[in-house]
Amino acid sequence: MLIAVDAAGGENAPREIVKGAIKAAQEYEVDIALVGDKAVLHVLAGREIKKLNLQIFEATEIIAPNEHPMRAVKSKPNSSIVIGTNLVRDGVASAFVSAGNTGAVVCAGLLNLGKIKGIERPALGSFLNITPATPILLIDAGANAECRPSHLVQFAHLGSTYVKHLLDIDSPRVRLLSTGEEESKGNRLTRESYNLLKKSQLNFVGSIEGQDISNRTADVIVTDGFTGNIVLKTIEGMGDNFINMLRQVGHVFSTAYHLQGRSLLHDLGLGSWVKRVDYREYGGAYLVGINGNIIVAHGRSQAKAINNAISLAKQTVERDICRIIREGNNEQTD
Amino acid sequence: MLIAVDAAGGENAPREIVKGAIKAAQEYEVDIALVGDKAVLHVLAGREIKKLNLQIFEATEIIAPNEHPMRAVKSKPNSSIVIGTNLVRDGVASAFVSAGNTGAVVCAGLLNLGKIKGIERPALGSFLNITPATPILLIDAGANAECRPSHLVQFAHLGSTYVKHLLDIDSPRVRLLSTGEEESKGNRLTRESYNLLKKSQLNFVGSIEGQDISNRTADVIVTDGFTGNIVLKTIEGMGDNFINMLRQVGHVFSTAYHLQGRSLLHDLGLGSWVKRVDYREYGGAYLVGINGNIIVAHGRSQAKAINNAISLAKQTVERDICRIIREGNNEQTD
Repeated sequence: MLIAVDAAGGENAPREIVKGAIKAAQEYEVDIALVGDKAVLHVLAGREIKKLNLQIFEATEIIAPNEHPMRAVKSKPNSSIVIGTNLVRDGVASAFVSAGNTGAVVCAGLLNLGKIKGIERPALGSFLNITPATPILLIDAGANAECRPSHLVQFAHLGSTYVKHLLDIDSPRVRLLSTGEEESKGNRLTRESYNLLKKSQLNFVGSIEGQDISNRTADVIVTDGFTGNIVLKTIEGMGDNFINMLRQVGHVFSTAYHLQGRSLLHDLGLGSWVKRVDYREYGGAYLVGINGNIIVAHGRSQAKAINNAISLAKQTVERDICRIIREGNNEQTD
Repeated sequence: MLIAVDAAGGENAPREIVKGAIKAAQEYEVDIALVGDKAVLHVLAGREIKKLNLQIFEATEIIAPNEHPMRAVKSKPNSSIVIGTNLVRDGVASAFVSAGNTGAVVCAGLLNLGKIKGIERPALGSFLNITPATPILLIDAGANAECRPSHLVQFAHLGSTYVKHLLDIDSPRVRLLSTGEEESKGNRLTRESYNLLKKSQLNFVGSIEGQDISNRTADVIVTDGFTGNIVLKTIEGMGDNFINMLRQVGHVFSTAYHLQGRSLLHDLGLGSWVKRVDYREYGGAYLVGINGNIIVAHGRSQAKAINNAISLAKQTVERDICRIIREGNNEQTD
């Protein structure tokens, strides 16, 4: 299985991307294709290229984070994002992982791979980094800033199918993100969506409020891409905040208890917890509804996050999610 | 100064409300009027009624959390929410504090106190419970689920004036909550609002993403009431999550270091941090733009939160915020 990785996208490209990709090639049974500046990649990957049989694809253009997605994709055919999606389209790669301009990755996916038949809008499905470590998929996490109720219902179907087949959850519990549990709460979009979800074949178990996200009452949380993106990032920010706070008190604490050299986080059993909420170590979002596998990683991804995103890509390919969604969508129920 | 308190609103009414109100009467120089079931309140407040000169107003009806706000307010003139807002309208009380049905409190405020001239929509301004403990006002935190760009600009003006005069911040930095820092990011509402905010007299310093909320780059964060409510509650939920996690490891830790009976949170200097992020201990949101002072407390408020909400009400009255907004709004700039 060949996974193409955008070595030019994200705040920590290319160094951290290459590091994460090399680690993934060593750890998982995947082949890696790096897409970016050939000369730079040769320097960064060095001997590992031969050792791990890394492929390198030259991309001479770069799409910046603040560029207009559609215009950038159309005007930069030699960018890593366009080349990466084309590798999937042409069957060269099984998946493409990018920490670059999210909007551009979504556009390139739409243009180069196309939507699965019957899908109105592809959406980003992102597992939330919260504790306890129960996987909860947030969909849409940022692909569609403006949505209609029918979009949200389709996101719910897509998310449900994804979680079912990726995690072997038999009948995923779907909840709608809103400002109250009652059907009457929320805005026009959520009220109409609630009504449609109620009538669907999904295991829809009602609305969910922000404070209950981590309470393990949902496998899939459905929302529009604007709200979803803000909630996802707010959770990331809170996690960061907490990690910083723990690290700060760590020093004071070590001194007080004469524990120099020992790790507070480790002693408290918080190591795995910190990993869980640290988005720099976290996986990525699957662009559900596209004819091919694209994983969007966080723009601030470090090596570990890229490594995890590649692992998610591998599982998504192995579980044949894209084909299942294609076939499931022909029936419209899953 | 008499502050009316809704003793029938919120999940922990009436016991925790009464407890918090009594504490406030003891701690601050305020007189308290409890609104609720007279017989029950006499039992709960007991001797404190005479000692603290508590006033009690009978409310024979209760507005439930899931009732339709406008219908409930209109059909229940003897509810604590309607009676409380009437006490402010009639000049009996300087402010009203309620942890009841938020929508109903907003409606009662609108109906009984009316909007300040020139205000399109009153909004809930809520200080975020995050660390470091820099006050950041989120507006609208939940009064208006559907908003137009002009509403958001007015929320920004209201929030800016509130923060300026409550906290003596000379020129509050206003940011717009969005999915990216660039003007082009976000949805239609944020893009149009960004454009209007740029041209305003406010100290508008751009958009802010979810993960940057706690980075001290804003004094006022503007958003629609749907997104604001979800973000506020997500932050609360994450805070809760951390507190639970810390408490769980606390026991393991105490045993490992033979610190039985000592408080991990206290030893780590985390006591104040936990207080800060625990919404049960937190203040409340000011309903800005109404002709009178209404503080909406969290539906899950415990005594401490009610106490804090009363303190916020007192400061809001003392700082004469309502009059300042009324006068400032005549000039449209502040």
